[in-house]
Amino acid sequence: MMADSATLAPEALRDFVARALTSQGVSDGDAAKVAALMVEADVYGYATHGVFRLRQYMARLKDGGCNPTPTIKVAHETAATALIDGDDGLGHLAMAAARDLAMTKAREAGIGWVGVRRGNHAGPLALYVRPQAEAGLLGMAASVGSANHVPPYGGTDLLLGTNPIAFSAPNDGEDPFVFDMATTVAAMGKIKTLLQQGEPMPEGWMVGRDGKPLTDPARKSEGFLLPIGGPKGFGLSMAIGLMAGVLNGAAFGADVVDFTNDTTSSTNTGQFVMALDPAAFGITDFGANAARVFDEMRASPALPGHAPVRMPGEGKSAAAKTRADDGLTLKPALRADLEALQAEYGFDAALG
Amino acid sequence: MMADSATLAPEALRDFVARALTSQGVSDGDAAKVAALMVEADVYGYATHGVFRLRQYMARLKDGGCNPTPTIKVAHETAATALIDGDDGLGHLAMAAARDLAMTKAREAGIGWVGVRRGNHAGPLALYVRPQAEAGLLGMAASVGSANHVPPYGGTDLLLGTNPIAFSAPNDGEDPFVFDMATTVAAMGKIKTLLQQGEPMPEGWMVGRDGKPLTDPARKSEGFLLPIGGPKGFGLSMAIGLMAGVLNGAAFGADVVDFTNDTTSSTNTGQFVMALDPAAFGITDFGANAARVFDEMRASPALPGHAPVRMPGEGKSAAAKTRADDGLTLKPALRADLEALQAEYGFDAALG
Repeated sequence: MMADSATLAPEALRDFVARALTSQGVSDGDAAKVAALMVEADVYGYATHGVFRLRQYMARLKDGGCNPTPTIKVAHETAATALIDGDDGLGHLAMAAARDLAMTKAREAGIGWVGVRRGNHAGPLALYVRPQAEAGLLGMAASVGSANHVPPYGGTDLLLGTNPIAFSAPNDGEDPFVFDMATTVAAMGKIKTLLQQGEPMPEGWMVGRDGKPLTDPARKSEGFLLPIGGPKGFGLSMAIGLMAGVLNGAAFGADVVDFTNDTTSSTNTGQFVMALDPAAFGITDFGANAARVFDEMRASPALPGHAPVRMPGEGKSAAAKTRADDGLTLKPALRADLEALQAEYGFDAALG
Repeated sequence: MMADSATLAPEALRDFVARALTSQGVSDGDAAKVAALMVEADVYGYATHGVFRLRQYMARLKDGGCNPTPTIKVAHETAATALIDGDDGLGHLAMAAARDLAMTKAREAGIGWVGVRRGNHAGPLALYVRPQAEAGLLGMAASVGSANHVPPYGGTDLLLGTNPIAFSAPNDGEDPFVFDMATTVAAMGKIKTLLQQGEPMPEGWMVGRDGKPLTDPARKSEGFLLPIGGPKGFGLSMAIGLMAGVLNGAAFGADVVDFTNDTTSSTNTGQFVMALDPAAFGITDFGANAARVFDEMRASPALPGHAPVRMPGEGKSAAAKTRADDGLTLKPALRADLEALQAEYGFDAALG
């Protein structure tokens, strides 16, 4: 249906984003693919990792850090694994190729594990695991973060990103299991929101260089994000860096490029996508068994003061359908930023 | 060398454990395999998951929950995946077979992912990932916990275990990367050790049904273990349950059997082991690149009040060599428990 004045139809936003990208030399086909994934992120509620990122991508395309005309190719391959070279193009292109290849391999070999090197920021990892679950497969994906905001546990040098990891699985209920998390307690975006609202951070989100809790969001640049579970989150983040970075010949540690502050250098971002086929394990009723467990969890009485138990991904299918049918509501700041981008880059498009 | 009176040579402890197991009908070969892995856990410092568990295993063997004469077999297989049926035997047998098969498949297909059903408690997951790293491969393993001590996030029914996960990777430095964690702030094994030692738990490990901190380890059954990072640890634990449990046709959720309190039922424990070969990704210098990153991390100045930055697994090789050479120091409570076991079960062995 047509979007009313307060909302925007996904196809209109896709068209806007695609026109922005083609203005920087991206082919029509690649621009359409990336725009579709960026808008899909907004449709599924990952607002901090969707069209909000267009400004960063445009700057990197314009300044040479991101290659507008990449040749995505398979550099190494076995029946069950591959390494995709993203040729420094928009990160969504290599990751979508990795996801599709992992799913094909899972159908043939039981598992597909596809690494990416010379990738770029690719939006939320959920984009690269939800399709597995919708196709009856299990999914996993992880990425070396696109900037180092986190020190090693107990240290003070910024050598780690938020190194996210995501998982998915089929479910015969309303929503597939889709779980996408950073390995830090808080994301920088939430801290920026508290700053706008004039509220302090809870203890445990950040620590200052003095080793003491940092709760004033205005002082965020003086401190460090903390990993979940202290040394556990650090270990998990290290494991992700080794599997997504070092295993693919991609950046990890001091050679990670801050993709926002440096718009001219190749980031050599490392990621991986995995798919597993229950049929290889003799399992024909995965979705039904998952649904049984999820129902048990949801039936658990809530702790006093807590909302009812929810599964990761729950409600996303219905919310996405509503946004697809009724249109997306862009935050005023995002709409203003997109209009400013259009003026700065001078591409021909209308936000409607 | 000979162990002095305060310590025990690993071979003496292996012999003791093997004699205990054969007294319950386990074959000499299987008993030797399991005893070697249980003592290896102590040698590498995983004291809560080594010989400390012998009493639980003996009770399950005696009462029929654990099959003393299992036939470990591959139930389903592709070039890169397999499902191993542990036939309700001692968990170490199925997991060691899974690890070995995953490594063989990784050499041939780039990756090996081997699930286990009808397994049992198998000691620390580190046992099933360290050999990958020592052989130049990356490793991952996870398990549905052997008892439900954790509610879903915000709920009150015990439907989740500590659901541990472990990772490993080669490193040209002193120690491979070996990281083994529970998805809860504390593992039940550590709480049992504090109980044995008569010490309280730190706040944050458990909460009672009233939502208040629970610090008396003797009251552990009245409370809940807390997941790391709140909903993040819950999501991670769910993902592990789906991959290690549901994917293998193993228990997850309400059908998990408490392997300590119920010594007569099959637990149908679900686990998986993975191995990845860097050669499949064209990487010939993984260990050197990992060492470079680890050196960067360790060179980071420590936060005030913190020890120098350490990598997961750091120091374990040297500590294991010392214990192998000079003998293991058994805690008095563990030595007393082993002696009591010998009296109860009447097997012929000496702790030296």
